[in-house]
Amino acid sequence: MSDAHLVETRLSSEQLVQGNFLDVRRDTIALPDGQRATREYVVHPGAVMVVPILDDGRVIVERQFRYPLQQVILEFPAGKLDAGESRHACAMRELAEETGYRARQWARAGVLHPTVAYSTEFIEIWFARDLYLGQRSLDQGEFIELLAMDPDALDAAACQGALTDAKSLIALMWLQKSQSGQWPLTWVSVPDAQQG
Amino acid sequence: MSDAHLVETRLSSEQLVQGNFLDVRRDTIALPDGQRATREYVVHPGAVMVVPILDDGRVIVERQFRYPLQQVILEFPAGKLDAGESRHACAMRELAEETGYRARQWARAGVLHPTVAYSTEFIEIWFARDLYLGQRSLDQGEFIELLAMDPDALDAAACQGALTDAKSLIALMWLQKSQSGQWPLTWVSVPDAQQG
Repeated sequence: MSDAHLVETRLSSEQLVQGNFLDVRRDTIALPDGQRATREYVVHPGAVMVVPILDDGRVIVERQFRYPLQQVILEFPAGKLDAGESRHACAMRELAEETGYRARQWARAGVLHPTVAYSTEFIEIWFARDLYLGQRSLDQGEFIELLAMDPDALDAAACQGALTDAKSLIALMWLQKSQSGQWPLTWVSVPDAQQG
Repeated sequence: MSDAHLVETRLSSEQLVQGNFLDVRRDTIALPDGQRATREYVVHPGAVMVVPILDDGRVIVERQFRYPLQQVILEFPAGKLDAGESRHACAMRELAEETGYRARQWARAGVLHPTVAYSTEFIEIWFARDLYLGQRSLDQGEFIELLAMDPDALDAAACQGALTDAKSLIALMWLQKSQSGQWPLTWVSVPDAQQG
């Protein structure tokens, strides 16, 4: 099935901002009917999210002030890919840096796109278990509070509007689907020597 | 419980871009420890998503080329709030414009934040049922293909990586949770005369 009736084609591209954090572009495009239009969007390196599961079934989540929303947001650990970094290496690094935990078992769940209208960002979803604690090393300017929560408490938070972060709602869904056997995960072992 | 150990405070703000679509700011802030930092982010008016349920249980979804990702994305109908528009009015308008459907029953499910790191955007989630067809009126430059899908097929698509749009994954979760009775919805009737 051809999608030619939907596809937009780049004619030219300009960079509107190269900030400390955001890279914003404006492209002139041809619509499927040949008309011209512009598309403005953020170029993002991609990110990973980790769902860290403790031996007692609780999961590690974070409370972090998210400046654009002017509120503390409950979310799973996540972070951007460094240049040339594999997604799994990024998952291991972000888990270690943000929480101090390392994991001896990892499973790749899937990918989500948080903002299809105006960002190239993808977030790859990883599960981590058989956790052990090591050194934590937050980035400069990162202030993160850690919590261990029962998945049922997270479910209640989502239902009541206290868990609104999109990636984390999807993490909760994937956790419940995997635990019910509907969306099975494939786990791989990572030796301690390969941990950060 | 005070969150003073997490909160960041605005010191100054500048607009980096006022595009056709994107409004990008850079604020200088004080971190919780008093150090300075910058935060760059998109100012967004907010949006709504609609989960339209047909009488036979299928849901209306869309296939749309999302330029930043350079691919056709499967997603639930959604759109940005117009200035001064209520969220419910926006939900009714977007459903009508993008799909042609009107709904005699509506339920507000919740709110999600797609991009907590760099956008003020929220998406309010609405469910719509008791649907009937009227006029469709896509925006200039909008090319959208409509499908009616069984929720089980959407679930399979999500598990297999063919449904990656964050808001739509959350819509699927909310649909399943509401249908199982775990996350009940409160429906309100809207007379035909109030439809667009």
